[in-house]
Amino acid sequence: METMPVTLADVADAARRLDGRAVRTPLLESPLLNEQLGGRLLVKAECLQLTGSFKFRGAFNKIAQLSAEERRRGLIAYSSGNHAQGVAAAARYLNAPALIVMPADAPAIKVANTKAWGADVVCYDRHGESREAITERIMAERGLTLVRPYDDPAVVAGQGTVGLEIAEDCKARGIAPDAAVICCGGGGLTAGIATALSGLVPGIVLHTAEPAGWDDTARSLAAGTRQRNEGSLPSLCDALLAPTPGELTFAINRKLVRSGVALAESDIVAAMAAAHRYFKLVAEPGGAVALAAALSGVIPVAGRTVVVTLSGGNVDPALYAKLLGGAA
Amino acid sequence: METMPVTLADVADAARRLDGRAVRTPLLESPLLNEQLGGRLLVKAECLQLTGSFKFRGAFNKIAQLSAEERRRGLIAYSSGNHAQGVAAAARYLNAPALIVMPADAPAIKVANTKAWGADVVCYDRHGESREAITERIMAERGLTLVRPYDDPAVVAGQGTVGLEIAEDCKARGIAPDAAVICCGGGGLTAGIATALSGLVPGIVLHTAEPAGWDDTARSLAAGTRQRNEGSLPSLCDALLAPTPGELTFAINRKLVRSGVALAESDIVAAMAAAHRYFKLVAEPGGAVALAAALSGVIPVAGRTVVVTLSGGNVDPALYAKLLGGAA
Repeated sequence: METMPVTLADVADAARRLDGRAVRTPLLESPLLNEQLGGRLLVKAECLQLTGSFKFRGAFNKIAQLSAEERRRGLIAYSSGNHAQGVAAAARYLNAPALIVMPADAPAIKVANTKAWGADVVCYDRHGESREAITERIMAERGLTLVRPYDDPAVVAGQGTVGLEIAEDCKARGIAPDAAVICCGGGGLTAGIATALSGLVPGIVLHTAEPAGWDDTARSLAAGTRQRNEGSLPSLCDALLAPTPGELTFAINRKLVRSGVALAESDIVAAMAAAHRYFKLVAEPGGAVALAAALSGVIPVAGRTVVVTLSGGNVDPALYAKLLGGAA
Repeated sequence: METMPVTLADVADAARRLDGRAVRTPLLESPLLNEQLGGRLLVKAECLQLTGSFKFRGAFNKIAQLSAEERRRGLIAYSSGNHAQGVAAAARYLNAPALIVMPADAPAIKVANTKAWGADVVCYDRHGESREAITERIMAERGLTLVRPYDDPAVVAGQGTVGLEIAEDCKARGIAPDAAVICCGGGGLTAGIATALSGLVPGIVLHTAEPAGWDDTARSLAAGTRQRNEGSLPSLCDALLAPTPGELTFAINRKLVRSGVALAESDIVAAMAAAHRYFKLVAEPGGAVALAAALSGVIPVAGRTVVVTLSGGNVDPALYAKLLGGAA
């Protein structure tokens, strides 16, 4: 195989950096749900990760490798909320100041938690201004180091530790998964998990899951080149609204990922309700798309063993109550 | 120390029986919440256990020790729902038929799941009939073996594996807990955890948590003899409505548990919301009382390390949505 921009060794290094810092999240299953599906469904519960999503892993792995001087000057990131919290928490553990550029309509819980981790927050209008432009201006003014949400080898390697743990837990329990479905925004979690699983679980088939209307990765995988989402459809999945796959992440994913699927909002809400009922886990909409792919039958589970990421749980209680009440 | 009816060795035996069957649930913490509390709070996430509560542990440990003939004839249990599901699941794994006597007003999710695990369910009117009388009649007619919800050494030893895991995880992470607070109905989980922790964590102080109006264990610990709850106040905590402490469990708890506390319903609902926000866990009301004790200040966390059980997550989605929406 030609040299990949992120290797299994990079993921193993990240795991060593994260040891004792990140939560080793459980790989859960529900025998009752398995029976209904006629197969075996394993849920990697990354909503139990520090900051409520997998994003802490990549941010910590990135920031830990910066120089002391870079950490002293501080970090900047743009994010709708999960990467924001991941960077804020990792920066705090590594004694670096952090400034986060967040859309004004980000979920309140994500903004509040980012501030609670000690980061400064600058808000922008997601429909008017460019977050990249704002970020670059502040970066230049203050000499800050950018922590990209996905297009960085260190971030991808950090997210890859999710895949390493999946492989280790499957091995320990004698499970040979046929497929894995990964919640996909810019593709960092996918690229990391794909790097780990394709190295450690030969023959496993990988899929991305995205919300309908935001299936740039699915279309890009089908086309072989990076596609862009048409407009800006409203979506519950605030965590997955990247306009196009990352350059680095797509270079990895186009080689290692079979295909992508898009899920309707009703299937995503049903998956949130199933996470509540069968797993006692709080899933945010964007964190439930891979589970939705498995439960809706879009990715078949019958007669197979399928792993899905439940990648985050940062959803405002009022919205959660409304969605759950409607799905009940 | 005089001989106890359940020993640390019994708990260790139960752990060996449950190995590979029960989920080894994580001990979670939230740095943001710790900061607010000025101390360290660790949550044992038993809502992630098979069947959504710790009850599977005790039921499996009991049924695994029955004779092949007893298992062939079958099992009977009475329960508002969590013990019902625990017995149904354990019986199924051990190839024994199970019949469960449940109150007609048990949460729908608990009745549905008990049936889904393959048990037969007989309903009774909690305000009219005696579940003990119904159970005894059917037992005698059919030669079934009763799996008691708490007053059985094998059940207590099984629940004690929760405490064993807490002690092991604390040791592995270099944590010396000052206190543990345990959700308490009949006292089986408390007696099991107390047996494990008092043996493995010298000096730890143990408390029970109960809903206000159902604080029979708190009053019994204070009086030194088993007290009974006055009336039958309505309570959200369907899992904790035992009328009086168990005989066996109280014999253990009066020696090992310092005191009990009673929590107002508003504090319990606030704890369910905190479990959602900080831990991404679905807690049922009865599963959130120990967390409520810590968050309300009834059991102080400031300057200390306190472990609480989050003992179950079986709550109907509609009720959950209503409580969470109100608490948000």
